[in-house]
Amino acid sequence: MPRVVVDVMLKPEILDPQGQAVANALPRLGVSDVASVRIGRRIEIDFTGEPDLDRAREIADKLLANPVIEDFTVHLVETDDTVDANR
Amino acid sequence: MPRVVVDVMLKPEILDPQGQAVANALPRLGVSDVASVRIGRRIEIDFTGEPDLDRAREIADKLLANPVIEDFTVHLVETDDTVDANR
Repeated sequence: MPRVVVDVMLKPEILDPQGQAVANALPRLGVSDVASVRIGRRIEIDFTGEPDLDRAREIADKLLANPVIEDFTVHLVETDDTVDANR
Repeated sequence: MPRVVVDVMLKPEILDPQGQAVANALPRLGVSDVASVRIGRRIEIDFTGEPDLDRAREIADKLLANPVIEDFTVHLVETDDTVDANR
């Protein structure tokens, strides 16, 4: 059964202090070729029946994302491959 | 320039109270056909030069994920399409 995945990221113009903190820590790992890091959320929704993208979009809009500062996208992945489907 | 995306999710056997809270709130939105919700992190890494998947995997392992309780996957997306590339 496919699973619905909602990716929620801060809009590009919104500062991301958490991502900035990770980027600032990278030189201590010897990594100097990273320009930016942005951290958002990935939400996996399993439906009892057929996956419903419109329903998932409604859930994302009302419950998962703050549309003032965040953008989200909704897509399907195959459950067998869990997080790395279609890649 | 492609961007590296790291998806970090709790291992399936680890309880996810945040996802559970969202699932419990869904009936109030009139949604009754969701079996489970799991919430993880999506991290977008932009490299200054060519994207380096092995480097990104090392960053994820050392800095972004806790391998005791979390799994992660690393993949490339095209920057022009930002969060919804390849879907």
